[in-house]
Amino acid sequence: MNTIVPRSTFSQQDRDLVASLFADIGAQTADTEGVSRPAYSAIETATIDYLVAFARKHGLEVEFDAACNALFSLPEDLAAEKFVLVGSHADSVPNGGNFDGLAGILAGLMCLVRAKNEGRRFARPVKVIALRGEESAWYGPCYIGSKALFGLLGTTELSARHKGDNRPLADHMAEIGIDMAPVKAGEKLFDPSCLLAYVELHIEQGPLLVNKDLPVANVSGIRGNFRHKAITCIGEAGHSGAVPRAYRRDPVLAAADLFTRLDDDWDTILQKGDDLVLTSGVVGTDPQKHAIARIPDSISFSLDVRSQDASTLDAMRDLLRAHMRIVERNRKVRFELDDELGVAPALCDGDVVAGISAAMRRLGFEDYVMPSGAGHDAAVFANNGVPTGMIFIRNRNGSHNPREAMEIDDFMAASSVLYEYLTHSEAA
Amino acid sequence: MNTIVPRSTFSQQDRDLVASLFADIGAQTADTEGVSRPAYSAIETATIDYLVAFARKHGLEVEFDAACNALFSLPEDLAAEKFVLVGSHADSVPNGGNFDGLAGILAGLMCLVRAKNEGRRFARPVKVIALRGEESAWYGPCYIGSKALFGLLGTTELSARHKGDNRPLADHMAEIGIDMAPVKAGEKLFDPSCLLAYVELHIEQGPLLVNKDLPVANVSGIRGNFRHKAITCIGEAGHSGAVPRAYRRDPVLAAADLFTRLDDDWDTILQKGDDLVLTSGVVGTDPQKHAIARIPDSISFSLDVRSQDASTLDAMRDLLRAHMRIVERNRKVRFELDDELGVAPALCDGDVVAGISAAMRRLGFEDYVMPSGAGHDAAVFANNGVPTGMIFIRNRNGSHNPREAMEIDDFMAASSVLYEYLTHSEAA
Repeated sequence: MNTIVPRSTFSQQDRDLVASLFADIGAQTADTEGVSRPAYSAIETATIDYLVAFARKHGLEVEFDAACNALFSLPEDLAAEKFVLVGSHADSVPNGGNFDGLAGILAGLMCLVRAKNEGRRFARPVKVIALRGEESAWYGPCYIGSKALFGLLGTTELSARHKGDNRPLADHMAEIGIDMAPVKAGEKLFDPSCLLAYVELHIEQGPLLVNKDLPVANVSGIRGNFRHKAITCIGEAGHSGAVPRAYRRDPVLAAADLFTRLDDDWDTILQKGDDLVLTSGVVGTDPQKHAIARIPDSISFSLDVRSQDASTLDAMRDLLRAHMRIVERNRKVRFELDDELGVAPALCDGDVVAGISAAMRRLGFEDYVMPSGAGHDAAVFANNGVPTGMIFIRNRNGSHNPREAMEIDDFMAASSVLYEYLTHSEAA
Repeated sequence: MNTIVPRSTFSQQDRDLVASLFADIGAQTADTEGVSRPAYSAIETATIDYLVAFARKHGLEVEFDAACNALFSLPEDLAAEKFVLVGSHADSVPNGGNFDGLAGILAGLMCLVRAKNEGRRFARPVKVIALRGEESAWYGPCYIGSKALFGLLGTTELSARHKGDNRPLADHMAEIGIDMAPVKAGEKLFDPSCLLAYVELHIEQGPLLVNKDLPVANVSGIRGNFRHKAITCIGEAGHSGAVPRAYRRDPVLAAADLFTRLDDDWDTILQKGDDLVLTSGVVGTDPQKHAIARIPDSISFSLDVRSQDASTLDAMRDLLRAHMRIVERNRKVRFELDDELGVAPALCDGDVVAGISAAMRRLGFEDYVMPSGAGHDAAVFANNGVPTGMIFIRNRNGSHNPREAMEIDDFMAASSVLYEYLTHSEAA
C-alpha cells in the first residue's frame, strides 16, 4: 500500500499563529452576535490596520492602491512588474461569521510569512490583497473594492445608500481617504496587465464539502445570476368568505402556481445535467393592508436565479416570462417586474484550475472541482480578463451568519494547496 | 304581458329621509378615508345616540339591553312578550364603508317609521336592534354584542386587546357603561325565548348580486370556517447560490406546493357541488432575517377556510393535514400550526327563508337564494336556537374598505322586502 495521506505542509507554529490572528480579529470586530465589519467603515479600516501591523512585524512590504485596498508582498516582489495576486475581502455581513473573506487574506499572508521564514521564492512574484467592500449587505452593490479597481462603479452604485445611516456609498468611500474623482470618472485605478493571475481562497458557503467529507475544493467557475428584488403579483382584494372561487383574482395562489411551475422547470433542467439554483428569499403580502379575512390585493417576492451557464439563465428568464403569461391568463392577475439585476457567470482559467488541481494531487488531496454558487471578487477579475482561480475550504452552517464554522485544520489544508500552487506553478 | 316590475314600496320622502341618515352618520364618523366606528367606543355610542334621537323624534320607543345595545319599537310593541328582532351592527372596520352594519339598522328603523306613519301593525311584534362590536378588526373576536347577549364571551375574548390602545375588551365594555359581572360570569343577558325570529339585512360583501344584476337576495345560511392566524413552514436558511437543490429545505417552495395542492382540492370539491372558499390573506418571510440572496428559514401564512357544510370543513382540515405530511416528507420542512379558530356554519330557518322568498315574489323580485360567505351576528342567533333569516343588498367593491358602494335604490328595494315580510309573515 502506498496511500498518500493528505496533510497540511504548514508547521504547528504557523497553525497557532493564524489561529491567534482569527481570534484577535474576531474579538476586535465582535457584534451582539458574530462579527460585523461594515464595508468602508472604521471597523474595516481597523481590521486592515491590524493586518498591516502583522505583515510589517513579519518583514513583509505593505502598499495601498487607489481604492484603499492593502497589498502585501515579500520585499523582493515589491517592485515586480507582473505578479500573481492572492486575496479576498476584509469586510463581513452584519452579524456574520469570522471566516467569510478574512480566511482568503490570512491564507495569502501565511504563504508570504512562510516563504519569508523559509527563505524561499515563489515560482512567480506574489502579492496579497485585502479588498474592501465585497458584501452587498451594507449598500446593495457587491464587489465594490474590486469593481473600483477596474473602474466599474457606476452612478447607481456610488449613490446607493448605507442601510444604517442612509448616506451614499461615495461619501463613505471618500471618508476613508479614497480620491473619488477617478472612481466617479470610471477610470481604472491600476493596470490589469500586471496581473499574471488572481487566486482567491474562500470558505464554501454551501454544504457540499461537509457532505462529501473533503477539506478542500478547486473551483471551476462562479455562477452568474439574474435577480429581481421585487416581483409583484397584483390581483383583487375581497372578503375571504364572500367571493366565490370563479370571481377571485387571488395573487397568493397565483404566486404559488408560478413558484410550482418554476420548481418543476428547475427539476427538469437539473435532470438534463445543467447547472441551476433558484430562490425566493423575500416574500410578503402588504402589512398595511393584509388581513386574515381578506383576499390580498397583491403579493411581492424576490427572485434569485443562478447558473454557471449564461444560456441556462436566458432559458429560465424566458420560462419565467412564459409561466407568468399563463398564470396571468388563468388566474386573472398581473405580474409587475422591477428592473432585473444581473451578474454574468465567470469561468475560472483552465491553466489556473489545472495548476491548483496538480497542487492538490501532489499533497494527496482529491482534486475535487465544483462551481461556486456564491459570488466573489474573483468573478470581477475573471470577467475582466485576469486568469482566475479559487480554492474552497470546507465550512459548516453556510456563511453570512454567526454559526459559520470553519476548522483551522481545513484552513491549513487549503493554505497548503495555495502555497504548493504558488511555489510550483510557473506557467502563465 | 303581465310582467311585475320589481319596485320599492317606500315613498320618495322615506328615500330622502334615509339618504340623509346615511349621509349624516357617514359625515359624523368620517376618517382619513371612509368611516371608522370603533367597537365599544365613544364614536359607536354617538352613532347609536344619533339613532335614538331620530327614533324618538319619529315617535318610536327606545330601550337599552344589558350589553348597551339599543332597541327600538312601535309604542304598541314595547311590552310584547315575544317579537321578531330585526337589526345589525353600528360599528365599522377602520377606514371602512358606511353601509356594512348601518344599512341593517336603518332598514329596520325605516320599517318602524313607515308603520308608524301608515298607522299599520306588523303581523307579529317587531323590535329593531342596533348591536355593538360586530367587527373583529378592533380586538380580534367578532360578534361581541350578540355573543354578550347569549353569555358567550369567554376570558380569551374579554381579555383580547384593542389594536390601538392595547387595553382589553372588558375595560372598553365597562367604560361605555356595561355591568361586566354577568358578562364575565357567562350569564345570558336576555331571555332568547322571547325571540320569534331574528332577521338581518346586510350589504353583500362579494360580487354575486352585481354580476347577476339583482338588487336583493335571500340568504340560505352563513358559512362557517376554520382559521389559522399563522401556519409556519420551517426549512433551513442557506446561501441562495451555494446550496444545491438536493440539499435545500426551502420553506417558500414548500408553502407554494401546499397552496397548489389545496387549490386543486378546492377545485375538486366545487366540481362535486359542495360549498367552499379558501384564502391565505397574510403571507410573509421574516423581515428581521430575510434577504434576496438567502434561502429563508421559514415562511408564515394565515389560512381561512369556509363552507356552509361542517363536513366539508372537516374534509378540508383532513386534507390540509395530509398534504402537510406529504410536503414535509418530500421537501424536508416542518409545518407548525397555531391554535385553530373556528365558527360553525349557521343555517337560516326554513320558515323565515320561505317568508322572505314569498315577500320577494309578491314584490316582483326574483327570489334568489345564496349563502353568506361573510360572518354576521345572525350566525350567533341561528346557532343559539333563534329562527334566523338574512336579506342581502347588492353592493359594489366588497366591504371593509372605503370604496364599498351600495345604491340607495337597492337599499329601498331590500327594505321593501323586509317591510313586506314583517307585515305579512305570521307563521312562527
